[in-house]
Amino acid sequence: MMNATSLPAVSIIGTGLIGQAWAVVFARAGCQTTLWDGNAQAAQAALALVRQQMETLASYGLVDDVPGAMARIQVADSLESAVAGADYVQENLPEVLDIKLDIFARLNAAAPLHAILASSTSGIPASAFTENLSGRERCLVAHPVNPPSLIPVVELSGASWTSAQTLARTRDIMNAVKQKPVTVMKEINGFILNRLQGALLREAFRLVEQGYVSVEDLDTTVSDGLGLRWSFMGPFETIDLNAPAGISDYASRYGPLYQELAKTQVDTAPWPKALIDDITQARRAALPASDLATRRSWRDQRLMALAAHKRQAADDQTETS
Amino acid sequence: MMNATSLPAVSIIGTGLIGQAWAVVFARAGCQTTLWDGNAQAAQAALALVRQQMETLASYGLVDDVPGAMARIQVADSLESAVAGADYVQENLPEVLDIKLDIFARLNAAAPLHAILASSTSGIPASAFTENLSGRERCLVAHPVNPPSLIPVVELSGASWTSAQTLARTRDIMNAVKQKPVTVMKEINGFILNRLQGALLREAFRLVEQGYVSVEDLDTTVSDGLGLRWSFMGPFETIDLNAPAGISDYASRYGPLYQELAKTQVDTAPWPKALIDDITQARRAALPASDLATRRSWRDQRLMALAAHKRQAADDQTETS
Repeated sequence: MMNATSLPAVSIIGTGLIGQAWAVVFARAGCQTTLWDGNAQAAQAALALVRQQMETLASYGLVDDVPGAMARIQVADSLESAVAGADYVQENLPEVLDIKLDIFARLNAAAPLHAILASSTSGIPASAFTENLSGRERCLVAHPVNPPSLIPVVELSGASWTSAQTLARTRDIMNAVKQKPVTVMKEINGFILNRLQGALLREAFRLVEQGYVSVEDLDTTVSDGLGLRWSFMGPFETIDLNAPAGISDYASRYGPLYQELAKTQVDTAPWPKALIDDITQARRAALPASDLATRRSWRDQRLMALAAHKRQAADDQTETS
Repeated sequence: MMNATSLPAVSIIGTGLIGQAWAVVFARAGCQTTLWDGNAQAAQAALALVRQQMETLASYGLVDDVPGAMARIQVADSLESAVAGADYVQENLPEVLDIKLDIFARLNAAAPLHAILASSTSGIPASAFTENLSGRERCLVAHPVNPPSLIPVVELSGASWTSAQTLARTRDIMNAVKQKPVTVMKEINGFILNRLQGALLREAFRLVEQGYVSVEDLDTTVSDGLGLRWSFMGPFETIDLNAPAGISDYASRYGPLYQELAKTQVDTAPWPKALIDDITQARRAALPASDLATRRSWRDQRLMALAAHKRQAADDQTETS
């Protein structure tokens, strides 16, 4: 069995985009990584795609040794052999409850008793597909942001029966592979990240709908304003530094303003169809549908450059402190 | 009179932190920049602080020619002489309505008729201090984020009587000095940026209050997740790229989830005192009050490094496109 500080042997169940990115994360960090997919050809194809991603990441300094990392990855020809030696299993099948119920039953039966069983699901709570498993205390959701190879945050959300040890070990594992774990202490719809995103998006939709700002200018407000500090500090640290005596001082100064604003931020209606149409029109004027794929590549390049920049900025800080 | 494409002669009224940062912005972009402060010594002291800021920025490649930029800055010994040759006036006095009323009356009397009169206020709408001015159509709020020398977004918010030409020319000026203007089309409390920040903060406070996540982990969710893409793309572009067929596809897939979340994001109570105390305790454990100033320097260094990185990333993009 692994101990808390050594790297786990990892199994990746389902080798679509998320599974591939997880393979990059674990293998580049030094983990023995075994892939399995219900479609054997897909698993083989994933190997080539993982290598391609690693080579691109290496060009930004985000993978040190592609052949070394690839040598740690193998493809298993059965689910049972895929997890037989696993300390940690990361499941990435489609977001369908019956599929999660089935795969977790199989994983629970096949994986060593000490192995942690984690799902990448963004929408289904662990309690919905682990309740009746003998090993339910070792099951949880470890929700990545796509792709985890570029965006390090991972939300760890257990059911009420998930053991504290499972959560703590998963947190250690994520830290060990250079991800950034966030522990969701009770199950909640949307976990943390999408709840924060949803709150901001709702206000964004509202401001556009009510004619206060254009789609383009709203995006600028974030990309050239709010989002800069948030790319290296969270919202609490941001406001803690934004008043002379820290966050309590900030709350005294600006709490009343934010309370006033909140009174006009309470509608819960669906995003209106006409508004979606207007925003779609604005976005398609800025970026034709035919350019979406190119722009996604640009986004990923920018994320890679930003990751390299953040690593450098952290190094600079260490040197001068 | 300046034309739309030439650089304006600028007057900076009030030379505290915001006024100093505006001086950096305008002078480094090539504008003749005149400072005035009610306290003549403060204006002279500001000159030295502006030079210091420029030298720091130059070390990150964010000012090209410090002596050249400093040579464009002069200090006026009266308000009247400060604005006599101005095309654009940026006012930065304390956030007190009577002060704004008084200074705008004086500026309106002293500045050339074509000059735009802009206030940096974050909390007082232009309609509250310009209604009775003969030149009220040339007055507006141009709200920066502190410091504008590092965070480019500027919110332009006119009163109902602010002319379209004033808003358009101010937008041109901000673009010409490399800031990022956002037009607020109707007056609204909090403008755009703080309304978005407030919506996200409220959910952040709520999640901590209800025991779903720690202060530290909530910050990580943003600094290593949500905030990464938002540092170079706005929230609309982010979701536009996050579904195969773009933003309308995203709305179909995730709109219902966000509507569900919204139902639990509607309270409008003040931020609770006990919660502020808990969050303060968590922040002070992470960062003692005695380290706030050092951490603010760190933040500014990170903002400078990020600005340099974004400039480089944009250049790389231009080269390859």
